[in-house]
Amino acid sequence: MSRDPFEYRTVDVTDEEFVASQEVYVDLAEAVRRLNRATVLTQVDPDVVRRATADVHALAAALEADLIPNNFGVVIAKSADGTGGSRIRGYGNAVVGRRNPIAAPVEIEVDREEGSASATFTLSALFEGPPGKVHGGVSALVLDQLCGEAAAAGNAPGMTGKLELRYRKPLALGECSAKAWVDARSDYKSVIKAWLKDAEGEICVEASGLFILPRWAREHLAAGQDAPEQFE
Amino acid sequence: MSRDPFEYRTVDVTDEEFVASQEVYVDLAEAVRRLNRATVLTQVDPDVVRRATADVHALAAALEADLIPNNFGVVIAKSADGTGGSRIRGYGNAVVGRRNPIAAPVEIEVDREEGSASATFTLSALFEGPPGKVHGGVSALVLDQLCGEAAAAGNAPGMTGKLELRYRKPLALGECSAKAWVDARSDYKSVIKAWLKDAEGEICVEASGLFILPRWAREHLAAGQDAPEQFE
Repeated sequence: MSRDPFEYRTVDVTDEEFVASQEVYVDLAEAVRRLNRATVLTQVDPDVVRRATADVHALAAALEADLIPNNFGVVIAKSADGTGGSRIRGYGNAVVGRRNPIAAPVEIEVDREEGSASATFTLSALFEGPPGKVHGGVSALVLDQLCGEAAAAGNAPGMTGKLELRYRKPLALGECSAKAWVDARSDYKSVIKAWLKDAEGEICVEASGLFILPRWAREHLAAGQDAPEQFE
Repeated sequence: MSRDPFEYRTVDVTDEEFVASQEVYVDLAEAVRRLNRATVLTQVDPDVVRRATADVHALAAALEADLIPNNFGVVIAKSADGTGGSRIRGYGNAVVGRRNPIAAPVEIEVDREEGSASATFTLSALFEGPPGKVHGGVSALVLDQLCGEAAAAGNAPGMTGKLELRYRKPLALGECSAKAWVDARSDYKSVIKAWLKDAEGEICVEASGLFILPRWAREHLAAGQDAPEQFE
């Protein structure tokens, strides 16, 4: 089971301490989300925009003084006395990442009994494809994440092998809701179904995903170890 | 053929004037992309982050003093003397929008003779799903846009009806390339195929899309008018 060196980082604090330390960065991401939306929609005077551009570069430079190398990845929080070792993930994720300013973010609730994942969220002007409508690929992006979380919630973890999307009607920008659930499973494969509804509750996009547990994870299981989390 | 009121805006300048007027906002979006990446990866001192958060809110407020309502949509540039009327689109698009800070952006080249669209682009830490890898849904997002542009380039315009994605291997964050082309067409439907390769040139994701010209567009064509652009 090979790993790229930048998948994991170990920090010598407890998981509670690590999570608490991230809140200040989460607040920054929320401010930058506001700036993202203002950027695509602003029509203020060019001089104001030029000054803002210079200020944004200066802010970015200050934050770049100390960067996590490459990507956020997964953090293993293990305090100095050796306790802990929790894997903490998802802060950088493109859909749900609370530290990621391009994530809506979508807050997903999982139901482990039902093997499902659902969310209500808002897609702003940043997610536009056809005029006034959510980009079809953004619908795919959100549904892929939901399907993966439903698979994990239903104890049918795996990686996306195939994803099929059916676009039934254009989805207006604004409030949306989505749900994914385990529809079938066999051995190391599972089928996840999902829908995405508009603010009126009409289904606009349907998805069906085939999730497959990769070989290294099967070997991991066969060796009697705990089930690995999805594609860690 | 009904339209939501916020799909189109008309501006009383020529298209050249409008495009030139956007460059200052394009520069801002590029700066905000840099800030997005710094935000997900920074580990500078919490006090620096708190000050940056306040500054970002202040910048957003300044830009919010005059916003395009709702969404960027499509601009019809028509100068005061009545010339022009070009439809200008794509500045706000979630994948290719040069004014949209959450767009990579992907710069797509189309080949009208071949009926294809291709692009080379970089997906940074902002597009992470599995640790160190591009989010499977981000691959879908990019491929959906490529497929739509290939359909338009091949004069087989339409809306995405179905999109199928096959994930062959995880795609590392970094440089990627993608290509989509018209594979088959009949009447008002076309099949578009596409691939997404990693920096080593290996295919990681394949896509197949069914594109359908909506009924209002067929009626538009039947009435002897020009072929409408994809889903305008």
